[in-house]
Amino acid sequence: GHHRLAVIPGDGIGPEVTDAALAVLDAAEQRFGFSTERTTVSLGADRYLESGELLPDEAVAELRSNDAILFGAIGSPKVTPGILEHGVILAMRAAMTQAVNLRPVRLYPGVPTPIAGLTPQRCDLVVVRENSEGAYVGRGSTVHRGTPAAVAVQESVNTWYAAHRAVDFSFRLAQQRRKKLTLCHKTNVLVEAGRLWLSVVEELSAQYPDVETDYVHVDAMCMHLPTTPERFDVVVTDNLFGDIVTDLGAVLAGGLGVAASGNLNLDGSGTSMFEPIHGSAPDIAGRGWANPAGAVLSLALALGTLGEGEAAAAVEAAAASVLSELPALAGEAMGATTEVVGQRIVDRLGEV
Amino acid sequence: GHHRLAVIPGDGIGPEVTDAALAVLDAAEQRFGFSTERTTVSLGADRYLESGELLPDEAVAELRSNDAILFGAIGSPKVTPGILEHGVILAMRAAMTQAVNLRPVRLYPGVPTPIAGLTPQRCDLVVVRENSEGAYVGRGSTVHRGTPAAVAVQESVNTWYAAHRAVDFSFRLAQQRRKKLTLCHKTNVLVEAGRLWLSVVEELSAQYPDVETDYVHVDAMCMHLPTTPERFDVVVTDNLFGDIVTDLGAVLAGGLGVAASGNLNLDGSGTSMFEPIHGSAPDIAGRGWANPAGAVLSLALALGTLGEGEAAAAVEAAAASVLSELPALAGEAMGATTEVVGQRIVDRLGEV
Ligand SMILES: CC(C)[C@H](C(=O)O)[C@@H](O)C(=O)O
Ligand SMILES: CC(C)[C@H](C(=O)O)[C@@H](O)C(=O)O
Repeated sequence: GHHRLAVIPGDGIGPEVTDAALAVLDAAEQRFGFSTERTTVSLGADRYLESGELLPDEAVAELRSNDAILFGAIGSPKVTPGILEHGVILAMRAAMTQAVNLRPVRLYPGVPTPIAGLTPQRCDLVVVRENSEGAYVGRGSTVHRGTPAAVAVQESVNTWYAAHRAVDFSFRLAQQRRKKLTLCHKTNVLVEAGRLWLSVVEELSAQYPDVETDYVHVDAMCMHLPTTPERFDVVVTDNLFGDIVTDLGAVLAGGLGVAASGNLNLDGSGTSMFEPIHGSAPDIAGRGWANPAGAVLSLALALGTLGEGEAAAAVEAAAASVLSELPALAGEAMGATTEVVGQRIVDRLGEV
Repeated sequence: GHHRLAVIPGDGIGPEVTDAALAVLDAAEQRFGFSTERTTVSLGADRYLESGELLPDEAVAELRSNDAILFGAIGSPKVTPGILEHGVILAMRAAMTQAVNLRPVRLYPGVPTPIAGLTPQRCDLVVVRENSEGAYVGRGSTVHRGTPAAVAVQESVNTWYAAHRAVDFSFRLAQQRRKKLTLCHKTNVLVEAGRLWLSVVEELSAQYPDVETDYVHVDAMCMHLPTTPERFDVVVTDNLFGDIVTDLGAVLAGGLGVAASGNLNLDGSGTSMFEPIHGSAPDIAGRGWANPAGAVLSLALALGTLGEGEAAAAVEAAAASVLSELPALAGEAMGATTEVVGQRIVDRLGEV
């Protein structure tokens, strides 16, 4: 097939890891006989600092006209925190109706994990994070700001519509996996939002009788995840809890360098976007130290949704294979991580 | 001295671990020459199921007339989730103006941790959780409940008053420790609440120039905590994030059986309450399997605030010493954990 791909390299290490992923894509195209037409869209700190632009209409139009988006990372210490997050990342998730954020937590064989005794067999789950609302609506207000009487109210808005969309997707994903779905929330304290999520899971579970459902509070999740990840297959949760538990999940699976994600549009009204979960890491930018595996594994997720299943599986397998060699390589003078790891994945792709 | 102590054994394993802690208290009184007058206050699932009572006025009056409260755990599968949490636990924190929840994350030597290579030297921090507001105000509303148009709005209310109280306490605590204070929040998304917390830290840091301050997003905290806990000394955070990160902290320090906490009243308007962070664990209640160390270490925190510093240190040391033996004991036929561990701590108290 032929696919239109928008590429947002972004800031810091974003362009470095994106380049590595695109080299892997070149190799995958050759090997599996598909092609992509790639358009670079520059968004992020540099563009904002130069022009004041965050997510201009023409960028949205460009992104929308593509079949998938590869995203590196954005952010810079020169920009006030919150501006790029709201103005670009969250704005893009909204503009492209990226309804869920898919975050696999998978420990590949040979990848060092800080959890003692954890094995790949025990760590293979997927978190489906609701990606459009909750506390991320960014609504709230402060009265008496800057005085001892100040009160800041922050709102979390939770619709049946978006919860249903995320939970339904999660049930279908669970059907293709080990048929277990766990809702993660804090229903005993966030009673209004919790009741909504519980009712959606209950309602939909009747439609998916082959999927077993379970419920775990977010605090308990942070205990279970590092110690008994085998309890979980698909975990569905709200936007804020998803943000938190997937960073913990990334620890299990070997750290930020490895974790991939997909911001998925589910109804054809926008374009899905794939990104490593690490940030722009300005402190190490330009040194070639960044591990491109997160970006390459995000590419694999992208290829899967583009219908290139064979290429997706091969890219994932090649990345996993190279990751298993890193601990040994790290002992030697390995050279620039980004390049060496990227090139090895390219080479491995010819072999898997 | 002489101290009035209210004891709330609660449900499930609550009474078992509380009994063990009270036996340790008996021994500490003998050894260090102080006395307590103890009043049992029955609150929790049993009382609620029998009488419909959650936190009656006379219970509040009784608790208020004491110098400290020892709390076991409450909760039962027979009670709808949310009822006891709001009606007893959160109501008590509010009625007693328990402004902060102090949660040490300390790995004692010899205690098994699931984090590979983690050492006690690297894991000694305290989380100060704001304990009166944020998402825990339990305010919100749902429109169109039970229909596809349902919207649940959940509010987080954050006052300068409560944030200032928690942050000021945290600065003073940091001064007595390694002089580093980290604010944990999600300021890039929860902009209103985040700005409030940041401004309070900034304002107070001028009053505590000897304390270094730092900021970490809650998602990043879930990465740093398991991998580089040595980064942290005192961590101050809001109610919901504190709930989440302290459960993760408990994992590092050896699990639920070990973690202690203090719900502290800071202005004399109420009574501080000390509790293990584990729940009532109805599935193992009555079997003697519960580790009483969390309850005993909570007792040590209580003794510290009652001015019995020597006894507090000895109880902590005795509990730590016995905890270091547990991995070896677990290999043998150890007998009932609660009793054996409790008795060993009592015995050890004579030796430390
Ligand atoms: C940068 C930030 C807004 C973002 C989020 O909180 O969603 C990031 O942490 C993520 O997880 O993608
Ligand atoms: C039981 C629940 C309301 C409580 C909380 O969320 O504060 C518990 O998890 C805790 O951490 O003390």
